[in-house]
Amino acid sequence: MEHIEHIGIAVKDLTTAIPLYEQLLNTPCYKCELVASEGVETAFFATGINKIELLQSTTPEGVIAKFIEKRGEGLHHIAYAVTDIKAEMERLKAAGYTLLNSVPKAGADNKWICFVHPKNTNGVLMELCQDRG
Amino acid sequence: MEHIEHIGIAVKDLTTAIPLYEQLLNTPCYKCELVASEGVETAFFATGINKIELLQSTTPEGVIAKFIEKRGEGLHHIAYAVTDIKAEMERLKAAGYTLLNSVPKAGADNKWICFVHPKNTNGVLMELCQDRG
Repeated sequence: MEHIEHIGIAVKDLTTAIPLYEQLLNTPCYKCELVASEGVETAFFATGINKIELLQSTTPEGVIAKFIEKRGEGLHHIAYAVTDIKAEMERLKAAGYTLLNSVPKAGADNKWICFVHPKNTNGVLMELCQDRG
Repeated sequence: MEHIEHIGIAVKDLTTAIPLYEQLLNTPCYKCELVASEGVETAFFATGINKIELLQSTTPEGVIAKFIEKRGEGLHHIAYAVTDIKAEMERLKAAGYTLLNSVPKAGADNKWICFVHPKNTNGVLMELCQDRG
């Protein structure tokens, strides 16, 4: 596992959250991207080598909408950069962690991604991220 | 705001969480530190330029114990590195954010720290961190 690629934050409304985070982090939102397969609209901010990804659900049944319903807005997941996502998936699987994807899938910001179930990670939803190049 | 200095994760029991995170992140815990003023025992892991800080409460009434009671184990706060914490505190205060500390206080890992109330940050408890040098 390398550096933190990004931190995902669940928000109800990007139209208010984006200007708030631009002010908070003192940096402009550099990209918004719809990830239709996940049912989320995302907004990215650079903080040095790391990124903050705000996530708004596109449907009332989406994972982000359900997360907010249950826990309120806030920290949703932590994503680590990896150079070989398949090798890292194999390593974690062999160590007994539960992967939520059997093969890497295309995520936001031009990445191959895989999620790790929070039941094995002290309640933290974790994502592996490899550049799609 | 610069890079993510660390991510704080609330856990019930460091004795099981430390080996789990060593395996998960594929890196050894490099330091444990008691922060008596906060009522927490901490354990640190390096992930590139960033760190993961596991937090266990030292008392049943501590903030981490209460957090876990309410929300379960998981992501607790996000800390950003800053070079001038006083200037950053002034900037955020002027912008209407609520600071939980009126002056920087001594935190774990040789830092000056200040927390920002989650009510202004979409539910995310945020920390500013400056090296104490």
